[in-house]
Amino acid sequence: MKKFLVLAATVVATTFSAASYAQFAKPDDAAKYRQSALTVMARHFGAVGAMVAGRVPYDAKVAQENIDTAVFMSKLPWVGFGPSGEGATIKNTAKPEIWKDAAKFKEHSEKMQAELVKVQTAAKTNSLDAIKAAFGGAGGSCKTCHDAFRSQ
Amino acid sequence: MKKFLVLAATVVATTFSAASYAQFAKPDDAAKYRQSALTVMARHFGAVGAMVAGRVPYDAKVAQENIDTAVFMSKLPWVGFGPSGEGATIKNTAKPEIWKDAAKFKEHSEKMQAELVKVQTAAKTNSLDAIKAAFGGAGGSCKTCHDAFRSQ
Repeated sequence: MKKFLVLAATVVATTFSAASYAQFAKPDDAAKYRQSALTVMARHFGAVGAMVAGRVPYDAKVAQENIDTAVFMSKLPWVGFGPSGEGATIKNTAKPEIWKDAAKFKEHSEKMQAELVKVQTAAKTNSLDAIKAAFGGAGGSCKTCHDAFRSQ
Repeated sequence: MKKFLVLAATVVATTFSAASYAQFAKPDDAAKYRQSALTVMARHFGAVGAMVAGRVPYDAKVAQENIDTAVFMSKLPWVGFGPSGEGATIKNTAKPEIWKDAAKFKEHSEKMQAELVKVQTAAKTNSLDAIKAAFGGAGGSCKTCHDAFRSQ
């Protein structure tokens, strides 16, 4: 057991509140986590966007893999915007409105997740046109939320 | 179509090489991506570690969810350590050995992924003891790779 304690203490960088798994020990931990999850999501969503924009050739398999990953990632960041994520001191663009109007923020986050699923569904048809038709709504949901809840 | 082009250009922060989806436009983009993927993975692996170490009570469902996410995340970072990820200028701890001895690094990365799957398999048995038995190998695989390929 001691071996595990030592490993857990040395290898695992992230710390956890004993109260809840959904909490972070420090707001900065939460900020780092949510930024990381959104960075990974954006990369994979962006890979689909590059095809939609014609910057890279459409590849049905690659598009599916990327949107699948983006959908998975889209579920993760929100815990980092919970109560334990308020007041981070590291560089971050989260507006106070996220915590002041948590219901509205949640609504936006759920809209985005639903829009990404639409792109995922479209990608399964192996049709770039279908992806294009769904992509605008997903991209728009990012922008709408950023305009309201992200500082520049 | 123009709408999509504009959206893709404004919403999607990440840029892509036209040559390959597996490449990054800049080494710093690759560094940011791999750091992000590892941060998310560490958080979820750490949630399991906290139970293994007895810092939080064991919850079979929470353990499974977290190791499932860690396993998913464990597949992602490596593209960021590819050729297009060498020479990043942002703060990062990747040693040059990652690119000098890519085969060895790949071996370590595959070992880690396999060890996480063992923890995942253990978590499905709803036995903390089974998780404990598998956790040491997974934590050890992190440490072995960090010792060889990560600067302090």
